[in-house]
Amino acid sequence: MPTLTLEQAHDLVAAALVRCGTAPVAADSTARALVGAEADGLKGHGLSRVPAYAAQVRTGKVVGEALVAMTRPRPGLLAVDAAHGFAYPALDAAVAHLPGIARAQGIAAAGIRRSHHCGGAGRPVEALAEQGLVAILFANTPAAMAPWGGARAVLGTNPIAFAAPLAGRPPIVVDLSLSKVARGAIVGARQRGEAIPEDWALDAEGRPTTDPDRALAGTMLPLGDAKGIALALMVEILAAGLVGAHFAGEAASFLDAAGDPPGTGQLILALDANAFAGDAVERFGVLAGSIEEQEGARLPGSRRLALRARARMEGLTISDALLAEIAAA
Amino acid sequence: MPTLTLEQAHDLVAAALVRCGTAPVAADSTARALVGAEADGLKGHGLSRVPAYAAQVRTGKVVGEALVAMTRPRPGLLAVDAAHGFAYPALDAAVAHLPGIARAQGIAAAGIRRSHHCGGAGRPVEALAEQGLVAILFANTPAAMAPWGGARAVLGTNPIAFAAPLAGRPPIVVDLSLSKVARGAIVGARQRGEAIPEDWALDAEGRPTTDPDRALAGTMLPLGDAKGIALALMVEILAAGLVGAHFAGEAASFLDAAGDPPGTGQLILALDANAFAGDAVERFGVLAGSIEEQEGARLPGSRRLALRARARMEGLTISDALLAEIAAA
Repeated sequence: MPTLTLEQAHDLVAAALVRCGTAPVAADSTARALVGAEADGLKGHGLSRVPAYAAQVRTGKVVGEALVAMTRPRPGLLAVDAAHGFAYPALDAAVAHLPGIARAQGIAAAGIRRSHHCGGAGRPVEALAEQGLVAILFANTPAAMAPWGGARAVLGTNPIAFAAPLAGRPPIVVDLSLSKVARGAIVGARQRGEAIPEDWALDAEGRPTTDPDRALAGTMLPLGDAKGIALALMVEILAAGLVGAHFAGEAASFLDAAGDPPGTGQLILALDANAFAGDAVERFGVLAGSIEEQEGARLPGSRRLALRARARMEGLTISDALLAEIAAA
Repeated sequence: MPTLTLEQAHDLVAAALVRCGTAPVAADSTARALVGAEADGLKGHGLSRVPAYAAQVRTGKVVGEALVAMTRPRPGLLAVDAAHGFAYPALDAAVAHLPGIARAQGIAAAGIRRSHHCGGAGRPVEALAEQGLVAILFANTPAAMAPWGGARAVLGTNPIAFAAPLAGRPPIVVDLSLSKVARGAIVGARQRGEAIPEDWALDAEGRPTTDPDRALAGTMLPLGDAKGIALALMVEILAAGLVGAHFAGEAASFLDAAGDPPGTGQLILALDANAFAGDAVERFGVLAGSIEEQEGARLPGSRRLALRARARMEGLTISDALLAEIAAA
């Protein structure tokens, strides 16, 4: 399997997206995010997405020439219209403008509407934490989970990401989706002809199932049962209802070129880390230390940093098939 | 068992707290919160707390005469010093001041330090949602959960509460703690001489246990495994590190009169619901409808509303033993 440097991978992806009709600045932003996720070991948000992304630009499900537009409806708010382009240029714009607003106001929120797949959700909050902010991202995704006790999917797997700065070292980064497992885990079980555990998914009638086909026709189960679904509802309200984006049940898939633009949303909250307490960042380090000193425990995000460092040294290994697909896009 | 009206219960609790040395205004605030939780069916945050609260005022672990002090370190931030009194007067102050700030700024945050048990965490966010705000509360609590893979508790059960307004009806309210079950469930199993499921708690060496005694000497397990612990870390950073409060591992128990004031913290975020999108509250109703129309599903918080309505009609039934304890306080 071929190995590419991160720069080579970036240029390959950006060129493929430009050939399909993506504006160069949006292609650059998208390529940086996908290569970053791949380097961090988040393969579901990495290079594997390029063929589907390219197909969506070709059909107009993603608007390749979309221009991000921003307004400030209130002093603490940044409203970002992703204009049915990729999410990454809108996320980058939010990350560029939030630090100034958050430092002045103490807290700021960016609401992104008419957006798309946000990719690795830890990336924007990590970038904010590197600038001394505590940041939270909520994103909604196409329908995957039913309300607790119900059978029809009206909520996404709805990631929550969080980052906080540490002195003299990379931020703490939490990044999780609210489904028990990723949909890819069920797809994998189907490919291997295996049953799935019965707490992963429900069939289309809302009954637990161990059959991957029935699960894929049904709904994903949340982490933590009813509590996880309640959190997914919170994310749906924050990331979609509040910012003026489509709800999960109104959004076409991120994975294929059929249908209208998904129009999902993201909400990013940013707080100046030291505005309440001058020693807050130091104190985050005390808490981090109380975790790291325990045998067998580690800070969230630490595995990702190790993989990233290795990818910078050794490059990314890509399958011949994916490389050919990207080159042909 | 005697039945009291909500007003009788309030006056009984407030009088008991005043007799122990609580300032009348703080006693009133605390009594309203405890009676409200009891009426909502949240008995763990209700009248059962009065004897322990009274004992803490008597020893000075809770400062009965504490005066809440507020500052505005930035235009979007309200810093609240609970001064080692009960949390409720500080929470009430935050709820009183946040709407004006959030409407002007679009988003506002109240950070409460030197605080105590926040009780039913849905109460403050529900009050904010009734005024047209979307609100989130994060609170830390004394140490109960270990980092994933570790054995020593450095995180609390750390509730997250969320509320969003609906047009012409009570708000959606989410209120959950991040442990799999409440500690009270393990205490109950011990009293009945029963084993507990092995995914509720770890013993003091970090091993799963079905023995309630070993569990109570060990740590609580989170909902959703490593993801739940990552969320608890997020809450610990937001509710304690950011606002200048004690971490879980530094906080004495809320349940007895031994030790220093816990000094835990709360962070409340409030957003003007219609500032990004003028029809956001209407849209929340669309999402609520897509849940309620499914057989077997219901909105989070709906059970609580039904219990509250019943308590208003029928009053609260209290055991003779608890009534005697409160009267004797």
